[in-house]
Amino acid sequence: MTAIYRVRSEAGSIEARARAIAVEQSVEMPVAAIEDRFVLAEIIGRVEGIEEIAAGLFEVRIGIATATTGLEAGQLMNMLFGNTSIHDDVTLADVVFSVELLAAFGGPCHGLTGLRQRVGAEGRAMTCSALKPQGLPPAALAELAGRLARGGLDYIKDDHGLADQAYSPFAERVHACAAAVREANRATGHATRYVPSLSGNLDRLRAQMAIAREAGVDTVLIAPMIVGLPAFDALVREYPGMAFMAHPAMAGAARLAPPLLLGKLFRLLGADATIFPNHGGRFGYTPETCRRLALAAVEPWADKRACVPVPAGGMTVARVPEMLDFYGADVMLLIGGGLLAACERLTAETAAFVARVAQGAAVMRAHA
Amino acid sequence: MTAIYRVRSEAGSIEARARAIAVEQSVEMPVAAIEDRFVLAEIIGRVEGIEEIAAGLFEVRIGIATATTGLEAGQLMNMLFGNTSIHDDVTLADVVFSVELLAAFGGPCHGLTGLRQRVGAEGRAMTCSALKPQGLPPAALAELAGRLARGGLDYIKDDHGLADQAYSPFAERVHACAAAVREANRATGHATRYVPSLSGNLDRLRAQMAIAREAGVDTVLIAPMIVGLPAFDALVREYPGMAFMAHPAMAGAARLAPPLLLGKLFRLLGADATIFPNHGGRFGYTPETCRRLALAAVEPWADKRACVPVPAGGMTVARVPEMLDFYGADVMLLIGGGLLAACERLTAETAAFVARVAQGAAVMRAHA
Repeated sequence: MTAIYRVRSEAGSIEARARAIAVEQSVEMPVAAIEDRFVLAEIIGRVEGIEEIAAGLFEVRIGIATATTGLEAGQLMNMLFGNTSIHDDVTLADVVFSVELLAAFGGPCHGLTGLRQRVGAEGRAMTCSALKPQGLPPAALAELAGRLARGGLDYIKDDHGLADQAYSPFAERVHACAAAVREANRATGHATRYVPSLSGNLDRLRAQMAIAREAGVDTVLIAPMIVGLPAFDALVREYPGMAFMAHPAMAGAARLAPPLLLGKLFRLLGADATIFPNHGGRFGYTPETCRRLALAAVEPWADKRACVPVPAGGMTVARVPEMLDFYGADVMLLIGGGLLAACERLTAETAAFVARVAQGAAVMRAHA
Repeated sequence: MTAIYRVRSEAGSIEARARAIAVEQSVEMPVAAIEDRFVLAEIIGRVEGIEEIAAGLFEVRIGIATATTGLEAGQLMNMLFGNTSIHDDVTLADVVFSVELLAAFGGPCHGLTGLRQRVGAEGRAMTCSALKPQGLPPAALAELAGRLARGGLDYIKDDHGLADQAYSPFAERVHACAAAVREANRATGHATRYVPSLSGNLDRLRAQMAIAREAGVDTVLIAPMIVGLPAFDALVREYPGMAFMAHPAMAGAARLAPPLLLGKLFRLLGADATIFPNHGGRFGYTPETCRRLALAAVEPWADKRACVPVPAGGMTVARVPEMLDFYGADVMLLIGGGLLAACERLTAETAAFVARVAQGAAVMRAHA
């Protein structure tokens, strides 16, 4: 595979710096002390290219042996950015994966098409909101879920802060919210999905998966950088029937390029949808970053299904037309606090959100 | 608990920015839309203090409810820095943990005292080296381990790049290296420990633990930010007899203060020793960062055992006296490539390293 780093450096020292990264991310020792032929030929990282992309900023391409990853998710990240993440002058910008890695990781089991089918959203953008604030008891969250569902949303996810807390234990919350959404669906005829947030180690994640399935849930939320990539990878393999929405918590955006981590890497490991901060919201992503991230999630890539881009973070109903214009229909729009701020008008505001997305679909059809 | 952030901001907007962080790391929604009294009183993050520590740089203290963590390792990180890690203007500088969190996480099971006892290093700094490069077959790594052990080291750890790769499967490597070190110990009379590196998800980590125990290993290496904090936490609880050395891979030092993450947090979760890049080596930590990190690892803290600071990363035998001067005796010195570069003189160079540390202990005793 080829790892692409962006390195701040003076022109005179960039070649030495590039070689140092190649060593750091592979053998991590003085090359002169290596005698083994296999290591010298196959394992040491190789500088494949250096290009100055701005004054004092270089794109450095390093070839890293696929064999060093053991085809395991955590070790993959370790070989890409383990020690180099500690260096201040480098960000990991992109990766060109080897055929072997693309075969070892299956990508989304459901992806864009599957998430659309679940809720009957063919040909249009999907809608999503979040259950907040944490601290509410299960009954209050369930009531909120019911009101949001009656507005006709496609997906209602837990806030990523909802875990397994004393004031809202996972099992109780999931059963209550799933039941409230089911009841709303009977009234509206929609197929709204409740998406609980998973947390903890692999044992706890599995126990939560069992509870979620028992409650009729078929889509879950997970923060891969919080539970750890190895745990995320294990769940995706064990529960092929479940769809996974990835949350960007702890993504440390400044050091790992968001299009790579949230778009490409999470997709490779099987995220069916990936949540990210939209430009112009609470976070500092530029429109260009968002466009590249969404593209990385959906563009044709080996045999991997498209992963749904889910722009979020301070979005409002007023921004829906502009967001549809920007992302097109292959997207799930997520408005959390912006709906919840409507308080007693919550269901009506939700319905307005849903209607705007439907209008957008009509406009797109008319243009087509 | 109190999370302490460093925020780049203009003076006129820091109060609003601090309130925004408090909301982001707790309820993550418009506060005006919250009616629940418990949430308003107990769950919303609280700005406890703002202090300008340099021009345009503020230290912001935010009170975060312990209840939101569910006393779970991953969720603890999520509540400390989940979404805020995505903001470019903030680093997480420190945390003052609540009594409840300090009770929920046990800290090191062995720590400084336990690691010293294992190898009979009372009153002096410990020594450590690393098996490299990855790509070598088990027999070659075992031969290397034997030569290092004959030099009289205390600990010989796997390079953190050694995982479970086709060219060096975990089980085969661990049995071979452990046997080589055992044999060397019979010759030298030392109690040198071989410290294999663990990787993968919780199932694989447990399987590797079983192999390690079978091979007589009582100390292992783990990268908590690669396997995920929840998996690390689970292992520490399940294997109280095993000592854990923490590796800083993926620590993303620029956004999480190293003394907090590698010193305090890893210690809280049970790292018996914590490896970090020493100043003046391949990484950019300052002497001040290293001093604060080492102090966070060993200073008296609740009922937690001291965690061994392990400065590393491009160290040499020549630097031993200076490092002992800087860190004192409560330290394990780790020289990897610097020993391996000696090639055929490996055992002699290792013995020189060990002798320097012993001399340092004599000098300290003379001064005392």
